[in-house]
Amino acid sequence: MYRNANCGELTETFAGKKVTLAGWVQKRRDLGGVIFIDLRDRSGIVQIVFNPQVSQEAWNKADKLRSEYCVTVTGEVVKRDPEAVNEKIKTGTIEVMINEITLLNKSKTPPFPIEDDIEASEDIRLNYRYLDLRRPEMLETLKIRNKITHTLRDFLDENDFLDVETPILTKSTPEGARDYLVPSRVHPGEFYALPQSPQLFKQLLMASGIEKYYQIARCFRDEDLRADRQPEFTQVDMEMSFFEVDKFQNMIEEMLVRVMKEVKGIDIPRPFKRLTYAESIDLYGSDKPDTRFGMTLIDLTDIAADSTLKVFKEVQEKGGLVKAINAKGVAAQFSRKQVDEDLRAVVSPYGAKGLAWLKVEEGGMKGPIAKFFDEALTARIIERTNAEPGDLLLFVADKKKIVADSLGALRLHLGKLLGLIDESAYNFLWVTHFPLLSYSEEEHRYVAEHHPFTMPVLEDLDKIESDPGSVRAQSFDMVLNGYELGSGSQRISDHDLQEKMFKVLGFTKERAEKQFGFLMSAFEYGVPPHGGMALGIDRIVMLLAGRSSLRDTIAFPKTASASDLLTKAPSEVSLAQLAELHLDVATILK
Amino acid sequence: MYRNANCGELTETFAGKKVTLAGWVQKRRDLGGVIFIDLRDRSGIVQIVFNPQVSQEAWNKADKLRSEYCVTVTGEVVKRDPEAVNEKIKTGTIEVMINEITLLNKSKTPPFPIEDDIEASEDIRLNYRYLDLRRPEMLETLKIRNKITHTLRDFLDENDFLDVETPILTKSTPEGARDYLVPSRVHPGEFYALPQSPQLFKQLLMASGIEKYYQIARCFRDEDLRADRQPEFTQVDMEMSFFEVDKFQNMIEEMLVRVMKEVKGIDIPRPFKRLTYAESIDLYGSDKPDTRFGMTLIDLTDIAADSTLKVFKEVQEKGGLVKAINAKGVAAQFSRKQVDEDLRAVVSPYGAKGLAWLKVEEGGMKGPIAKFFDEALTARIIERTNAEPGDLLLFVADKKKIVADSLGALRLHLGKLLGLIDESAYNFLWVTHFPLLSYSEEEHRYVAEHHPFTMPVLEDLDKIESDPGSVRAQSFDMVLNGYELGSGSQRISDHDLQEKMFKVLGFTKERAEKQFGFLMSAFEYGVPPHGGMALGIDRIVMLLAGRSSLRDTIAFPKTASASDLLTKAPSEVSLAQLAELHLDVATILK
Repeated sequence: MYRNANCGELTETFAGKKVTLAGWVQKRRDLGGVIFIDLRDRSGIVQIVFNPQVSQEAWNKADKLRSEYCVTVTGEVVKRDPEAVNEKIKTGTIEVMINEITLLNKSKTPPFPIEDDIEASEDIRLNYRYLDLRRPEMLETLKIRNKITHTLRDFLDENDFLDVETPILTKSTPEGARDYLVPSRVHPGEFYALPQSPQLFKQLLMASGIEKYYQIARCFRDEDLRADRQPEFTQVDMEMSFFEVDKFQNMIEEMLVRVMKEVKGIDIPRPFKRLTYAESIDLYGSDKPDTRFGMTLIDLTDIAADSTLKVFKEVQEKGGLVKAINAKGVAAQFSRKQVDEDLRAVVSPYGAKGLAWLKVEEGGMKGPIAKFFDEALTARIIERTNAEPGDLLLFVADKKKIVADSLGALRLHLGKLLGLIDESAYNFLWVTHFPLLSYSEEEHRYVAEHHPFTMPVLEDLDKIESDPGSVRAQSFDMVLNGYELGSGSQRISDHDLQEKMFKVLGFTKERAEKQFGFLMSAFEYGVPPHGGMALGIDRIVMLLAGRSSLRDTIAFPKTASASDLLTKAPSEVSLAQLAELHLDVATILK
Repeated sequence: MYRNANCGELTETFAGKKVTLAGWVQKRRDLGGVIFIDLRDRSGIVQIVFNPQVSQEAWNKADKLRSEYCVTVTGEVVKRDPEAVNEKIKTGTIEVMINEITLLNKSKTPPFPIEDDIEASEDIRLNYRYLDLRRPEMLETLKIRNKITHTLRDFLDENDFLDVETPILTKSTPEGARDYLVPSRVHPGEFYALPQSPQLFKQLLMASGIEKYYQIARCFRDEDLRADRQPEFTQVDMEMSFFEVDKFQNMIEEMLVRVMKEVKGIDIPRPFKRLTYAESIDLYGSDKPDTRFGMTLIDLTDIAADSTLKVFKEVQEKGGLVKAINAKGVAAQFSRKQVDEDLRAVVSPYGAKGLAWLKVEEGGMKGPIAKFFDEALTARIIERTNAEPGDLLLFVADKKKIVADSLGALRLHLGKLLGLIDESAYNFLWVTHFPLLSYSEEEHRYVAEHHPFTMPVLEDLDKIESDPGSVRAQSFDMVLNGYELGSGSQRISDHDLQEKMFKVLGFTKERAEKQFGFLMSAFEYGVPPHGGMALGIDRIVMLLAGRSSLRDTIAFPKTASASDLLTKAPSEVSLAQLAELHLDVATILK
């Protein structure tokens, strides 16, 4: 027998009992001929004691132990003297007097200590991922991940959603991101694709009468990786028939409330806040705003246009905007140089040509552009921005998108810099009615903002050919603390409307047939109205575990160059393997 | 609102209530100006009635309905007259008098009826999988699958197993089946492989201190497909540290008992029956015996060698076996021709050169070989085979493997033919201590019977280099009704023993390092003793849902040529996609 108790679960109620434990040597100290070891297993840490007067044989073995040696030990749980109590660990009121020990496996000295907040580079951590995962914060993250997915599954099961697995070896439908391809051995020259999402299959399941589907699904995108992307990622994917958006959103809210309660012990109030996409851009300059603090964007275009500052007037005439944020009470904290250099550096990557500013004082405003506003205009600005003496007003005047992006970024920057964000808050937010389509300068055509199966807002339908960019979608995003957790929508379930959508997206009839013919065929057999959404599990884990990288939420993640440093994947394969797949590697031939 | 009740859940307690339902037209009948429709949703079927005296408008719409039209209807639940009760359906005591109907979607006439036991070819069913899945038996199979996986997850969660996701884009380690490969765009000439199982990662998770891991994992093998194989399949994959085989097997038994109770409502007695591999081959001629009936193989080598039949003596001298099965009481059912032709055709594919037989009569035996046995030998045969008048004894004399394979197959054939199998029984069986290695004539080396990480039986360890074929493994298979559900083993956790295993398997040090170096490195950092197993979900669903094909257990399966007939995968991709992946397709170049 290796164990009959877990290290981290021993308490004073065990005092006097004999226990057998198994785990790893976390730390060893010798004090006056007695050896003290912190023994660690998945449940936590307990102090075990080797006293030669209890067992010379066990002491002799313990004397040879080093960090990360794996052992099983037997001994008696005893209460510690009051002065020896360690309040830092849960088991700090007891220790275990060992009389038997078996060494299960030795360990080389680990390249980094098995503890939180280490200084090792991420490459070293990924190379030795099996040691990295022994660190408490990594183990805790995997436990949180497990709890989140289990809670989601229980909730969806209770709500009659069926867990249905969809294929990983599927068809390439290059609309969206780049596919990972898998060459077929049986069909020379043909390829499977790994799914970017189960979108087509879940709609087919609605055509199949499954009515309520979910899956915690692996998805794949061969994109250039940023810090918050992985080549393979996991989403909880849901779809339902006889879909009503309000009922569906209510259910999603209940599900997330359950997750927050189970995982964080926090009661999140319902209903969640809702903003349309237009409102979100207007107020926050972002479609995934962090609503844990205010400092919303204020439209001052009309007032600014009345000023004598030419550039403001011109922006208005060209259909642009002049907007500002009010950084309350911090005017004195920012020198002219800090605003002109540091804050301007925040907005310039978004195309803002300048960052105008005003400091509000008793009876007026001060700053380089103050002179362009007469007393009446000054009063109007102060009123509209709710400004008080000591406030700093920051202006961007430009095209709508530039104003939104740059002030949105500045708002976030200041929110963090000024400590305005309550880090313990979880602000869930629906952002709805995204544009259905956006024009791709690269492809010279409209592309689907969400995907080609999203239902347009019916009252916008007459503009779908005349003014596609203005058509809103019956779509909704779930946003948490400035991160998009996932997207959903009502889907098109009408064969003719779907055909029209493909046309608007510039698909020839042949291409639509070749890529999506099976879905179009399914739409001819009584497909129910349906809709759904997907939420990113990795992202949810990251936010709930308080991690800063998606890589920390995944047991065996890939680097920014899509490599697994531990197993050394991808790697070369034999020419025989390639020949069987009818492949030459061009670079080998060259 | 589309619905506030489900078709299949309406009972007499709903009588007098107004309900709104949504679903599909299963069947329509017109009787005396009244339209009766069987409306189907995921929950079942209910009869809805359109009477022009209730609503002419609804009747007019109903008059246009055809099979598989999707509708939502509102009406009052009423009890049926006693003579109109339909006992075939759960809702047969009521019907719903409709006064409102909305057509949600039309349907073309389906290529096959939406009902069980259809005659459509499987190709047609797979082409229209979205219609095939509407059939009750297919829907029921997906529901059973969902229930099985949910029960497994709950059980493993209760037992502190952590659900950890392992990568799908991983490293090619061509030991075992053929890998599916994924070309890397970022690393020209390099490839990921799809995992044949998470074996390496779950062992790394044990090195990571996860202690108890599970995953319902997708696995991939690019093999030539038989009826019971799919290129991608799903297993419940488990691994635990501080592994003790008895405790682990007990837990697996409890888990399967829970599944049987939840899914089939059946109490399976524990502990499950156990056989060693050697016993199983000896008794059943198979390592996955169907133990729902007897007719075990009986060794008669010693008696046969005493007979005057030369071939029996020769077989014994060459180290072969003479074994028989006793088909009780059926001697009269089989003519000489039937035995010599029909039954012999069962054994000959397995290499048996003949099938000898004897019919037992009062006071003796009859048949072509009876004359080679004197009275004393006859008596010994009758005693050892427990034979009675009317029994048919069937003999195969050959090498051990041929005897086992051919008599094992004959036993199964007769079991089915003679109706000896209780189709309602679920006989779980452990088969343990498989050979660690088997010699591959093809590769001229020993290969791992299970995988290279399986722990040998310690007392056999000294023969690992001198007589590798005789070394037994600390392995175990779970068998149900003649099907292998999955395999497990204690793993090697000792660095040096693992190195020795690679050597026995003919790996050079370089190859072992290149393919499994990361695991060997992990073994240097205090890896705990560990073990685990994996059970095939598709197979379990097949047996519990009473299906005859694995394809019926998977929503979107592939054909024997690994094609998805619905989406037409695999398919050609653009040359631009190939160029990005640094690939030429050899067959295009030719």
